[in-house]
Amino acid sequence: MTKMKCTVAYDGSQFFGYQVQPGKRTVQSEIQEALARMHHGQPVKIAASGRTDRGVHAYGQVFHFETPLNIPKERWPLALNSLLPNDIYIRDAEEVPEQFHARYDVKKKEYRYRLLTRMEPDLFRRMYTTQVKETLDLDRMKQAAGAIIGTHDFTCFCAANTDVKDKVRTVYQLSVQREGADEIVLRIVGSGFLYQMVRIITGTLLDVGTHKIAPERVAEIIAGRDRQAASATAPAQGLTLWKVSY
Amino acid sequence: MTKMKCTVAYDGSQFFGYQVQPGKRTVQSEIQEALARMHHGQPVKIAASGRTDRGVHAYGQVFHFETPLNIPKERWPLALNSLLPNDIYIRDAEEVPEQFHARYDVKKKEYRYRLLTRMEPDLFRRMYTTQVKETLDLDRMKQAAGAIIGTHDFTCFCAANTDVKDKVRTVYQLSVQREGADEIVLRIVGSGFLYQMVRIITGTLLDVGTHKIAPERVAEIIAGRDRQAASATAPAQGLTLWKVSY
Repeated sequence: MTKMKCTVAYDGSQFFGYQVQPGKRTVQSEIQEALARMHHGQPVKIAASGRTDRGVHAYGQVFHFETPLNIPKERWPLALNSLLPNDIYIRDAEEVPEQFHARYDVKKKEYRYRLLTRMEPDLFRRMYTTQVKETLDLDRMKQAAGAIIGTHDFTCFCAANTDVKDKVRTVYQLSVQREGADEIVLRIVGSGFLYQMVRIITGTLLDVGTHKIAPERVAEIIAGRDRQAASATAPAQGLTLWKVSY
Repeated sequence: MTKMKCTVAYDGSQFFGYQVQPGKRTVQSEIQEALARMHHGQPVKIAASGRTDRGVHAYGQVFHFETPLNIPKERWPLALNSLLPNDIYIRDAEEVPEQFHARYDVKKKEYRYRLLTRMEPDLFRRMYTTQVKETLDLDRMKQAAGAIIGTHDFTCFCAANTDVKDKVRTVYQLSVQREGADEIVLRIVGSGFLYQMVRIITGTLLDVGTHKIAPERVAEIIAGRDRQAASATAPAQGLTLWKVSY
């Protein structure tokens, strides 16, 4: 058996999230179905770096699988893409050692969150950005971002419905930058992320940017370890899993 | 009765074109359905500046309709947008004189065609750009564009299946410009356009840009008035009806 690691992009708009759910169109199901077709109907299970929620996109999601097929690595993307729908695209495939695991071996993940900062909606970016009609104070957002960087217990930024016990994570980078005429992009790199952590951080930075929360308050919110103290979860469609590093 | 003129944007991806077709989801049907709801079920017919094909987008399509309702003009977009699906957006509404006609009074139309010039597909722009993997020579394309500007019989750039007799139109502007890291945008302004004219012009400019046709050949193609001499019709999804002027 050969172990393959694949990098995949997907447009989350038309999926019920990444993970298999009976009767729903999901990213994992589509990829496993394409792999099964390549394996003459034999089921092939894939393991990804983690799930993404409904409406969340990926540019650099990673998964692995094992195969008895002997196909050169550069042929895998071509073969899979010819079987996949046009909202999933395998960007790369490589052979990895037997002990590699797409989830357990993650060193860093990068997410990006795109905000559309103008009054009129943009139909053509409605599935890839979250519109914010209020003026955002970037300096305040950057100041608050500084308080999030580092190793902390991030209970405050974790959705309540989770089984994860250890909520200590490290955020290596968190930048807030204007892009183009009317976008602001949040880039966040961390050792790993709790359930909905990036979207709750985004929601909290939005409240800082619109003067609902003081930037200094963010360190207190983290220290308090109370989800209720942080802000609402930002919508899914602005979020993209950008890169997974091993 | 009051005559209203509306400017509407739509994402053509999920429509079978602009015009009503029985049993199909079209832009005109959706707008007329929203208007009928505002008029207590009474049908309201709209007249647009022209049709757009399946998959073609609009940023500034214009239509008119007549109404017995007495609603201030700034309330119309709010009322209609609350009833319309999220891939149609009424940008503006204004009252116009009784004799105004959205189709017959058009002075100029502007279309834009977006090309994605990179090797890897971009899932997030797949519905709004046409990917070109070959290198495009912009200087050649600009030279050819110069031959198209002006008043000509554009039979060569008109799809065969049309009833229109007079094929003389005026192209006022036709520019080819890089935009961002990996896009080229064609902007074309004309007195009016024949069926699929912008997409056939785009296809022809692409053949010039990839050295399949000499730029000097384009004037001959126009003079020859033969659709077969021009290039293939470029795909719908790169095209947007940008602006209609009266």
